[in-house]
Amino acid sequence: MFGRTFYNGEMTEEHIGQEVSLKGWVQRRRDLGSVIFIDLRDRTGIMQIVFNPEISAEALAAAEKVRNEYVLDVKGTIVKRDPETVNENIPTGTIEVHVTEINVLSEAKTPPFMIEDGTEVNEDVRLKYRYIDLRRPVMFDTLKMRSDVTKTIRDYLDDHGFLDVETPILTKSTPEGARDYLVPSRVHPGEFYALPQSPQIFKQLLMVSGVDRYYQIARCFRDEDLRADRQPEFTQVDIETSFMSQEDIMQMTEEMLKKVVKRVKNVDITGAFQRMTYDEAMNRFGSDKPDTRFGLELIDMADVVRGSGFKVFAQVVESGGQVKALCVPGGGEKYSRKDIDHLTEFAAIYGAKGLAWLKVEEDGLKGPIIKFFTEEEQAKMLETAGAKTGDLIMFVADKKKIVADALGALRLKLGKELGMIDETKYNFLWVTDWPLLEYDEEEGRYYAAHHPFTMPAREDLDKLESDPGAVSAQAYDIVLNGYELGGGSIRIFERDIQEKMFKLLGFTEEQAKEQFGFLLEAFEYGTPPHGGIALGLDRMVMLLAGRTNLRDTIAFPKTASAADVLTNAPGEVSEAQLEELHLRIRQTAK
Amino acid sequence: MFGRTFYNGEMTEEHIGQEVSLKGWVQRRRDLGSVIFIDLRDRTGIMQIVFNPEISAEALAAAEKVRNEYVLDVKGTIVKRDPETVNENIPTGTIEVHVTEINVLSEAKTPPFMIEDGTEVNEDVRLKYRYIDLRRPVMFDTLKMRSDVTKTIRDYLDDHGFLDVETPILTKSTPEGARDYLVPSRVHPGEFYALPQSPQIFKQLLMVSGVDRYYQIARCFRDEDLRADRQPEFTQVDIETSFMSQEDIMQMTEEMLKKVVKRVKNVDITGAFQRMTYDEAMNRFGSDKPDTRFGLELIDMADVVRGSGFKVFAQVVESGGQVKALCVPGGGEKYSRKDIDHLTEFAAIYGAKGLAWLKVEEDGLKGPIIKFFTEEEQAKMLETAGAKTGDLIMFVADKKKIVADALGALRLKLGKELGMIDETKYNFLWVTDWPLLEYDEEEGRYYAAHHPFTMPAREDLDKLESDPGAVSAQAYDIVLNGYELGGGSIRIFERDIQEKMFKLLGFTEEQAKEQFGFLLEAFEYGTPPHGGIALGLDRMVMLLAGRTNLRDTIAFPKTASAADVLTNAPGEVSEAQLEELHLRIRQTAK
Repeated sequence: MFGRTFYNGEMTEEHIGQEVSLKGWVQRRRDLGSVIFIDLRDRTGIMQIVFNPEISAEALAAAEKVRNEYVLDVKGTIVKRDPETVNENIPTGTIEVHVTEINVLSEAKTPPFMIEDGTEVNEDVRLKYRYIDLRRPVMFDTLKMRSDVTKTIRDYLDDHGFLDVETPILTKSTPEGARDYLVPSRVHPGEFYALPQSPQIFKQLLMVSGVDRYYQIARCFRDEDLRADRQPEFTQVDIETSFMSQEDIMQMTEEMLKKVVKRVKNVDITGAFQRMTYDEAMNRFGSDKPDTRFGLELIDMADVVRGSGFKVFAQVVESGGQVKALCVPGGGEKYSRKDIDHLTEFAAIYGAKGLAWLKVEEDGLKGPIIKFFTEEEQAKMLETAGAKTGDLIMFVADKKKIVADALGALRLKLGKELGMIDETKYNFLWVTDWPLLEYDEEEGRYYAAHHPFTMPAREDLDKLESDPGAVSAQAYDIVLNGYELGGGSIRIFERDIQEKMFKLLGFTEEQAKEQFGFLLEAFEYGTPPHGGIALGLDRMVMLLAGRTNLRDTIAFPKTASAADVLTNAPGEVSEAQLEELHLRIRQTAK
Repeated sequence: MFGRTFYNGEMTEEHIGQEVSLKGWVQRRRDLGSVIFIDLRDRTGIMQIVFNPEISAEALAAAEKVRNEYVLDVKGTIVKRDPETVNENIPTGTIEVHVTEINVLSEAKTPPFMIEDGTEVNEDVRLKYRYIDLRRPVMFDTLKMRSDVTKTIRDYLDDHGFLDVETPILTKSTPEGARDYLVPSRVHPGEFYALPQSPQIFKQLLMVSGVDRYYQIARCFRDEDLRADRQPEFTQVDIETSFMSQEDIMQMTEEMLKKVVKRVKNVDITGAFQRMTYDEAMNRFGSDKPDTRFGLELIDMADVVRGSGFKVFAQVVESGGQVKALCVPGGGEKYSRKDIDHLTEFAAIYGAKGLAWLKVEEDGLKGPIIKFFTEEEQAKMLETAGAKTGDLIMFVADKKKIVADALGALRLKLGKELGMIDETKYNFLWVTDWPLLEYDEEEGRYYAAHHPFTMPAREDLDKLESDPGAVSAQAYDIVLNGYELGGGSIRIFERDIQEKMFKLLGFTEEQAKEQFGFLLEAFEYGTPPHGGIALGLDRMVMLLAGRTNLRDTIAFPKTASAADVLTNAPGEVSEAQLEELHLRIRQTAK
């Protein structure tokens, strides 16, 4: 092998005349009889290399046997291309390398699909031949961006005194939360480790240890049925600090994320991130992670329809429900009755029993329900909606949650359809003042809205027992373009509050002690106030790389059935292995 | 809480007069009646804070209730200490803070042991209260060094174009190698994932993908019975490159390790690392990871004892064995007959049937076996050993392996006992030209000396079938002060060589295809020559931090029975969890 002088995408006209040694894969080969042109590809780009008998008959003869995806090692000289062979589609298109020597390092069968960005290949094939899929520039660039994102985060946190501390992967099963992956112990018969769903407990223990500032880019695991945007193992940027306020943590996170966007997108995000309480987000956008790149906000019509002749609306308001609307600019013409029927079906997915509508025409509001409203009510309706001629107003009247879910989803759908979203924007948003608990009506019990270690608002502490549903949390989510990037909170650091919290979540005293006794005990040996945040790295990279699939941000992802089709994992193991682990497969399994 | 202005160890006399806000743990409290002194500790050090009625009667009253390990939040002014209260043992010993306001953030029970470096505590107690153990400065400093080591490595590799790529933790079981940790699949009944013993296959696939330069600070897992220097999960600095030679990889690794030592020890390592072949290391030091900080090398006595009157030695040489010696400077006086009996017992652990010895006195060699040697032989013996009056020469005569093991171990023991080791040295050493295979006489088969993916020396390829035991590997280990820091190799990248290798290791064609078929197939789509190295991070930190125990380099380590005594992992899981995983515990397990 020759020593490499350049990557293929690195050479420019400045290097003309230089002797170089290049390595790479054959992207394309054109045999013009007496001359052979090869596009030689590596992770940086493409260089055209030229074989002809005047330069080296021997090299030309070798190049005749070369096919796509062969790996070559060549020596030659950089020259300027003839004007008629200039390729303006690639940065190196004005130069080429005239090859004097060649080693064919590796031959290649015809790959199952072309190595190019636009290729339309079934994802199963891409995953089975992942090593070929990753040769496509868009896939390499995403891996590169992921590496750049984590490096930027590490640089920032290291500069700010954070220690990168590794926490265990073989840890303890804690039934609260999602389903654990379990690992049978050979040494302790019948016992199991669990893979961590997050390093939550360990990072809190590090705060008790006085580490003061901790971070980890941590692998986490959840054995859940997979959706498009879930993976059994995922990575989170995990940060915890002592003695810092919610405000401190938010400002630091902002500064760090700005550096990331600057580094990988060269975009300056100026000013503080927008902030909004959970209630405001739900009221204005029908979502706890609103996409603020466009308006089309939810409009409260309660004051307009209260006591009106349209009993369906009036009764919902009277019985404590909501009547809200979207005012779709220009929607009156764009959406036919049939279109609106489809939108009604869409809203029904989110529980909406109907989707009432009115169009704003030159001579006023039109539509099936207009007859129920007085002229005065119609004028108030137009004013409240800020509606103009040509707009379409769509109403959902129902319980608060259904109104939010249905109109929130409809808003996103219409925003996309109507091209209201500026795809070049990076709209970061903090959502604050979350409820501490969520009540599950079916199970008749409370769940932690974030997790059981989140500190209640100090001023709500006395409501913990009397009115737990009304307690706010010292919790904050960071949202980017309508996706939850991550979330954090100030943690409970007092044993008595933590015990109350476990009790609210239905733990008996014994259960709390059995599962989290060591944490409760740790709190008694001098614990600093602490809090932190966790950011989903896979999703962050997905959004920054402009991908729509988390799998594209992971080198070797799993399919929707949690399988790795490249290596064939999971797989069967031997009876001897099972015996060592004191396990049998249940008969029903086979 | 007040906003922190300084960490406790950061203030100097330059800051005298400043109003500050400090946070920390009470290391020590001295109540002199009208004045209370508290040593306030955080991760950077200690600041003496002073409460007296002239500054604030209220703060003094609060300080009266404070005990060790309480967490405090104080405001006050930095002042110069009275000369008689200066503490020269700490960097901040000439100043103190006069406290005007105090918040007691957290109370504390009396900790189970003192927070100080020299504390002699049972390790089980330290592990159970790990969050207290990590408060000891030496423990924090080790965590900090670990973070600094990885940051330095990441900076170096990022600067050199390496991508940090995460590979899966849920992967496939490969019975070759150590025992896997298994993870039952819920979705695929009766099937299991395995936790990776290393990212070997994935990093090679990344090279097939054209990633060109990969690294990862990767968690790896082995379910082995633990020794003092093993953990079920450990971390390796994992590096792989394409198109680089063994020489390139070694030089890059050297440069990187020099930066690490400079960063965390402020030591400049000048010049290239020492290099030695495997054969030379075994011959001179009786070890494949010699500690080169001292001499005491093995001396080959074959030419001296061949044909001598001492038949025990002569016969060993004749039958193809070895007779080697250590010449211990000044050992003649230091080691009594009884001491030598103990050394003989020690050598027996390594299989040596005896330990013959001679002392060098003013009037010549003395000892039980001297009568078997002629004067000429004695003179030659002295010359070969380079022995001086007062030295002790100890012999082992046996098979090559036993001679190396016994004298290698004895050399280390004596080197330590005699204070021959300069503990301030960082002696890095490359050991190269390893054998490709090791023959297991009991099982009558070959094992890979490194792993099955190591490339044989090109010039030995024709011996792969005819004389596999004589084939050298393109493999290299990096040794630091007698510990193996890591190892690497150039990999096989041709399907036919890889298939031959699997066959040598006893794989049937079907087994090779079943376990590694995807890799063999990948090699057919254009694979660059590639190679890399893996360094053990835990051990690197242990050596750099001057610790003797790998557990001290890991925030939350496991015990020798692979248990986490802090969180009580592993533990029992519910019948429902087992059922979901299609498993039963074997009755014998309970």
